[in-house]
Amino acid sequence: MSSLVLDPPFGLERQSYAPRRQLRGLMNADGWGVGLYAEDQAAPVRWRSAKPLWGDASFASVAPVLRSRAVLAAVRSASAGMPMDESAAAPFTDGRWLLSHNGRVSTSVLPARHDAESVCDSAQLAVHVFSEGPERVADTIREVAAADPEAYLSVLLTDGSRVTAVAWGDPVSYLVAQDGVVVASEPYDDDPRWIDVPDRHLVEVTSAGVGVTSLG
Amino acid sequence: MSSLVLDPPFGLERQSYAPRRQLRGLMNADGWGVGLYAEDQAAPVRWRSAKPLWGDASFASVAPVLRSRAVLAAVRSASAGMPMDESAAAPFTDGRWLLSHNGRVSTSVLPARHDAESVCDSAQLAVHVFSEGPERVADTIREVAAADPEAYLSVLLTDGSRVTAVAWGDPVSYLVAQDGVVVASEPYDDDPRWIDVPDRHLVEVTSAGVGVTSLG
Amino acid sequence: MSSLVLDPPFGLERQSYAPRRQLRGLMNADGWGVGLYAEDQAAPVRWRSAKPLWGDASFASVAPVLRSRAVLAAVRSASAGMPMDESAAAPFTDGRWLLSHNGRVSTSVLPARHDAESVCDSAQLAVHVFSEGPERVADTIREVAAADPEAYLSVLLTDGSRVTAVAWGDPVSYLVAQDGVVVASEPYDDDPRWIDVPDRHLVEVTSAGVGVTSLG
Amino acid sequence: MSSLVLDPPFGLERQSYAPRRQLRGLMNADGWGVGLYAEDQAAPVRWRSAKPLWGDASFASVAPVLRSRAVLAAVRSASAGMPMDESAAAPFTDGRWLLSHNGRVSTSVLPARHDAESVCDSAQLAVHVFSEGPERVADTIREVAAADPEAYLSVLLTDGSRVTAVAWGDPVSYLVAQDGVVVASEPYDDDPRWIDVPDRHLVEVTSAGVGVTSLG
Repeated sequence: MSSLVLDPPFGLERQSYAPRRQLRGLMNADGWGVGLYAEDQAAPVRWRSAKPLWGDASFASVAPVLRSRAVLAAVRSASAGMPMDESAAAPFTDGRWLLSHNGRVSTSVLPARHDAESVCDSAQLAVHVFSEGPERVADTIREVAAADPEAYLSVLLTDGSRVTAVAWGDPVSYLVAQDGVVVASEPYDDDPRWIDVPDRHLVEVTSAGVGVTSLG
Repeated sequence: MSSLVLDPPFGLERQSYAPRRQLRGLMNADGWGVGLYAEDQAAPVRWRSAKPLWGDASFASVAPVLRSRAVLAAVRSASAGMPMDESAAAPFTDGRWLLSHNGRVSTSVLPARHDAESVCDSAQLAVHVFSEGPERVADTIREVAAADPEAYLSVLLTDGSRVTAVAWGDPVSYLVAQDGVVVASEPYDDDPRWIDVPDRHLVEVTSAGVGVTSLG
Repeated sequence: MSSLVLDPPFGLERQSYAPRRQLRGLMNADGWGVGLYAEDQAAPVRWRSAKPLWGDASFASVAPVLRSRAVLAAVRSASAGMPMDESAAAPFTDGRWLLSHNGRVSTSVLPARHDAESVCDSAQLAVHVFSEGPERVADTIREVAAADPEAYLSVLLTDGSRVTAVAWGDPVSYLVAQDGVVVASEPYDDDPRWIDVPDRHLVEVTSAGVGVTSLG
Repeated sequence: MSSLVLDPPFGLERQSYAPRRQLRGLMNADGWGVGLYAEDQAAPVRWRSAKPLWGDASFASVAPVLRSRAVLAAVRSASAGMPMDESAAAPFTDGRWLLSHNGRVSTSVLPARHDAESVCDSAQLAVHVFSEGPERVADTIREVAAADPEAYLSVLLTDGSRVTAVAWGDPVSYLVAQDGVVVASEPYDDDPRWIDVPDRHLVEVTSAGVGVTSLG
């Protein structure tokens, strides 16, 4: 866990106070969350907090002993008016799925539901994507974008085996390394193998490789 | 503020770890909140927390200097599955109104809305009561109770001038003292003037006095 | 981790709101902490919080995937006047050692030092025990007890291989199970093999077995 | 309260995420605190938090109704290795005095004491200044600076009637306005009347006016 989140020079810990590519907000100090998959269970486990990642002594201590074949980690910069709660921090979850959202969306274009994890826009978007089906996330994002043309809707999803990401407004990059693929809102180091995903594109990472498709 | 919340022998601070009349849960350590009305503004101000009231050194220090003509204070025992967030702690607010809920209700019988303060059942009930109109709270509670017969729906509302309470499942008591009226989920001292409100009754406190009406 | 802390019927999670043998305080809702030893590192890792254990969704989710040959876990009931901080929650640490304290002690009988983790009495006691040497903890406790006859000084120490506990005022019990030894402030289940340590006794658990010695 | 802390364009809320004159650290998101004096009591009341000021909905709501003849407010950027606790956030207090410290100091040059509010360097400095006597703060700072030449030791003290500040390493400014004097680590607006205090100078604000003295 720490090799992905804490150790890289421009990893999430640094992104919590000094992101390099962020479009809105100066930092991401309104909470954080990680989800990971243990060997023997389909559903992920989650560790989330409403406090800044950089000051979390417990996560800094425990992260090195958390190991997983797949991790989804996020730091939060709350949109104005959204609650500063732990339950508003990504990743959101449904069954074996994890989802994080970088951006903002008017909740008025999303169906009102009782089963969101939080009233914040990202949690409302997450439960909408889950209910429409993770496999059709690209269509769902396109439909939401049509209803709210000013929305920023970049999302990452994983079920522990594959990763799906949509770049829609906020940046998404990926890195094919020897021991796996990393999809991120910004490169966590200066490795020249990082590839920027063009806006309004879908990234699909499976055991077969990485595919990038235009959503134009 | 402290004369109502912290000083009484069985006040909210003690109710946070040792309530005397609680029907469910051993204590109320999952957060707390107070709302109060300043001289010169219609909308109340709120101070809420996800932590136990008894350990809050800041509230214990500042409460004595907070003065108000009307206060609504609550401690929280989260229902199972509900988020442990500051935004899930009563009082909830809308314009000049404050509302707290003692009990539990299935959110599935409430209309799904985008403007609740939290996904927790009490916040969903609050926004439903506000949207139906505080003046018809008794009808709203009756309708919700019809839809969820197992719900506990005791609520307190105030706009700073009058107090309306519904006893529906959880206890409500009131005290007419020389300097004002107190409505509470349980008496905060052993003053013999405390009056228990019969279940399924409405309490209305105005400058004209206290009225109790059956909702049978 | 969860098999020790969360799953037992009277384990630490339940002890956080309803301890069975506690001498002072109704519950242990002022924080919690766990320390554990990973395979490949001598120093333990720690996860601590100032909030009640029972409401910690992250620990409940992640604990099942934390595995360790040795765990020291504690829930906190703060003594009056002590800070309600994460850094005041046991276990305290020094090098490869972890220590928790059940009880209270006047800090005025302890040497003032700059390297305690917190100003709370337990952290001051911990740094004193560490500086005197974990192997002579029994003597150190005896000396502190002589200086503050009203102190409660039960402590647990481990370096990941052996466990040392002193029962001094607050109860200590242990259980020799098939897969290891558990030392606790109270039995976490009704297993008849739990043994109560007499007051003012030292317990030493090593690979050779369990020894109990009077400190009279 | 809010007219001093929240409303100014470069006030403490903005300084919590984007300070203009800070020498070390990018922001001040590791907690905050305010102390104020009520009409009828000599000792100040305090509200402190370990979380960022900008996201504190309760303080934003309640601050406008807190009124005081004197306020000491601070935002915190924790020095490396210091605990991220509420009790480590200024202002520190002793009797009727409040103190905040901008800077860092090696605790090894301060006397070890049992009565500090926290093990953090600023709290250790505060209790040292209080024990030496607030009226001789300039001498105390000079002595500490001699023992730790790399220390940054700017402090503000008030007892509700007068303000004493020492600029030693970190900047201090003051503003004589019509309704009072403000002493701050940086101007909270672009009012041309703000005066920068030269380094290693003492500022004394009493009802007689403002005096600035060299500590050279």
